[in-house]
Amino acid sequence: MKVIDGGVTSAKGFKAAAIAAGVKYPDREDMAMVYSEKPCAAAGTFTGNIIKAAPVLWDMRIIREKKEKVHAVIVNTGIANAGTGSEGLRNCEETAKKTGEVLGIDKDQVIVGSTGVIGQQLNMPAILSGVEKLAEALSDSREAAHSASRAIMTTDTHPKEAAVEFEISGRTVRLGGMAKGSGMIHPNMGTMLGYITTDLCISGDMLQKALSDVVCDTFNMISVDGDTSTNDTLIVMANGEAGNDEISSEGADYDIFREALFHVTRELARMLAGDGEGATKLVTCKVINAADKNKAKILAKSVITSSLTKAMLYGNDANWGRILCAMGYSGVQFDPESLDIYFDAEGCETIQVYHDGAGVPYSEEEATALISHEEVIITADMHEGTAEATAWGCDLTHEYVNINADYRS
Amino acid sequence: MKVIDGGVTSAKGFKAAAIAAGVKYPDREDMAMVYSEKPCAAAGTFTGNIIKAAPVLWDMRIIREKKEKVHAVIVNTGIANAGTGSEGLRNCEETAKKTGEVLGIDKDQVIVGSTGVIGQQLNMPAILSGVEKLAEALSDSREAAHSASRAIMTTDTHPKEAAVEFEISGRTVRLGGMAKGSGMIHPNMGTMLGYITTDLCISGDMLQKALSDVVCDTFNMISVDGDTSTNDTLIVMANGEAGNDEISSEGADYDIFREALFHVTRELARMLAGDGEGATKLVTCKVINAADKNKAKILAKSVITSSLTKAMLYGNDANWGRILCAMGYSGVQFDPESLDIYFDAEGCETIQVYHDGAGVPYSEEEATALISHEEVIITADMHEGTAEATAWGCDLTHEYVNINADYRS
Repeated sequence: MKVIDGGVTSAKGFKAAAIAAGVKYPDREDMAMVYSEKPCAAAGTFTGNIIKAAPVLWDMRIIREKKEKVHAVIVNTGIANAGTGSEGLRNCEETAKKTGEVLGIDKDQVIVGSTGVIGQQLNMPAILSGVEKLAEALSDSREAAHSASRAIMTTDTHPKEAAVEFEISGRTVRLGGMAKGSGMIHPNMGTMLGYITTDLCISGDMLQKALSDVVCDTFNMISVDGDTSTNDTLIVMANGEAGNDEISSEGADYDIFREALFHVTRELARMLAGDGEGATKLVTCKVINAADKNKAKILAKSVITSSLTKAMLYGNDANWGRILCAMGYSGVQFDPESLDIYFDAEGCETIQVYHDGAGVPYSEEEATALISHEEVIITADMHEGTAEATAWGCDLTHEYVNINADYRS
Repeated sequence: MKVIDGGVTSAKGFKAAAIAAGVKYPDREDMAMVYSEKPCAAAGTFTGNIIKAAPVLWDMRIIREKKEKVHAVIVNTGIANAGTGSEGLRNCEETAKKTGEVLGIDKDQVIVGSTGVIGQQLNMPAILSGVEKLAEALSDSREAAHSASRAIMTTDTHPKEAAVEFEISGRTVRLGGMAKGSGMIHPNMGTMLGYITTDLCISGDMLQKALSDVVCDTFNMISVDGDTSTNDTLIVMANGEAGNDEISSEGADYDIFREALFHVTRELARMLAGDGEGATKLVTCKVINAADKNKAKILAKSVITSSLTKAMLYGNDANWGRILCAMGYSGVQFDPESLDIYFDAEGCETIQVYHDGAGVPYSEEEATALISHEEVIITADMHEGTAEATAWGCDLTHEYVNINADYRS
């Protein structure tokens, strides 16, 4: 497997486009389209929130109930089309119908995504005219993918893309994706908006299996603020243009693909965590030698979700009591006497801060220098077994409060 | 039942004192003592955090295992004596022993409390000399109780006290208490530090029953930051000086006492929430007409715990989508179509913002004026049954980040 520069147009047969449609803000790209002429097997994971946005309900029906082969994705930013009642559902269907018309496909072959403020109705004249312009602008260029990844951003400070290339039974396959998300990030069986394309030939069932599998260790292991959005959606589309024999069961080919998908979803998930609203750094928590994997996951997520740990990291303060406290209230039973806690950052010596139920002397100066890095790694060694898990988050900053005290203006 | 101005010395036979012992900070009262010459039935609830501070372990043993009648409480602020290993346990015992010596009681009749930074050892010379001075300064005055409530503060901006007077079979009984807590507040079967005294005559078992009962609807329904502390402790002491016949079973007398205890614990809990670190306002969420009480509690707590809801309230922004979202990811099943959401504040007209699965038009200007009040009430009417619950929290502010980015300096 080789990491390549790319996004949703890296795989053969996929085109993308972005435009400034004026859905809510006048001066930025705010709609994106992804299209494959060949029909695609598709898989998706969605928010666990009871309140599901209209496009989430639409996509869930397509992916889970009808098992339609899909051809296109249409996304707008600025307005989430959540908490919008029956009018919101009609607007979502109208968007899919228009997309189907301009691309010559059925409306049930169109995945719809929306992100932005909850509770406002879509500006439909802008959306419908946007769909027409997007269809005309479709391109398989690298720049088209990049524009699409910019167009789906809300409070993100930079676009998120990742892509890889790998061989399956002698055929070169590509897999690339984009994602957005900065606030209201605490995915639960889903994520914020993420779209991944591949020219692999694979059955819908195996595609869903691979996606559901990797999401548990990637998108579901990040948090910005503990708030699970109403719009979380992650879609993978496979159009088969690589020409490999269809993957329809587990085996060596499936494993190669799963590893590639894991890489792309993990990279996108890490980018989301590191670009959390107001964040100045990416925080990685590794729990190692735990009794079982589930416990390791709960512990790692409790650390990166703690407001006190997040604020302490913003202050470059090695106040490890916050980490200990967050592990302690996670709900997982463990022996504090056998726990070790370490801080790491690139180019720094590892600093141990906790051992034998109490603090270990260390240099506050060196610890502050370490925590000032753009990525800080907290390792908790449980000395209980062999399971491990990693979670990604960010620090809690003044800018997070600024952004969310006045999100709508 | 009559609300009176008072605290831990309101009930007959209780004395208190506070001094500046120099445990960590040189210039403030940082140790407090409460004492009853008559032995007291005692009850307590403690943190659910796996990581329990040394004084929590000490108090749990006294309250739960030995069922000792207690005489005294000794508390220090500045250092939490948590994450301090076996040395921390020895220091805690030493503190109780010294307190016993100066008061002429057994060390197992002394409740110990500590609050402050995790992971540092207590400054024992300061603690031990502080205990001596406190014993000399004990007084049953109103001011002594007030000083004690100031001495147990950490980042609190004001002391918290509440007291009531009521009649039990012709005898006048008083019940008063103090509490502290501002950050790391998300009590789970306990709270931050709280000490309540009463001259009621009641058995230890019935006292524990009443306390465990009221805590579920008071201290366990507040949150500042979702972080459950290592030191949460709430203690009630009853010395029997009111002269009533001992309450040893449920009945009319028990109900009167339970109501009084509910009032005092709710007032103290509300004060903790409203004085959350950096808070500018108290946020009350009432969930009414829910299917059952447990669901109502989970929903109310999810709303006041959401970082996004908290930041929105700081910005005086009626962005109700945040509330809807927090209810949706709470884990409770409900029908969004039958939900109504309202905002209230003293002296303002009620503003409805959500009905029939979508937003209701309202004046943003009036909503901003309402949310600018010191106490904002969010009401969610589920239209599912008759159960209700209330939770209390606060807004998320720049000052919260300031306080916790550099807590230790």
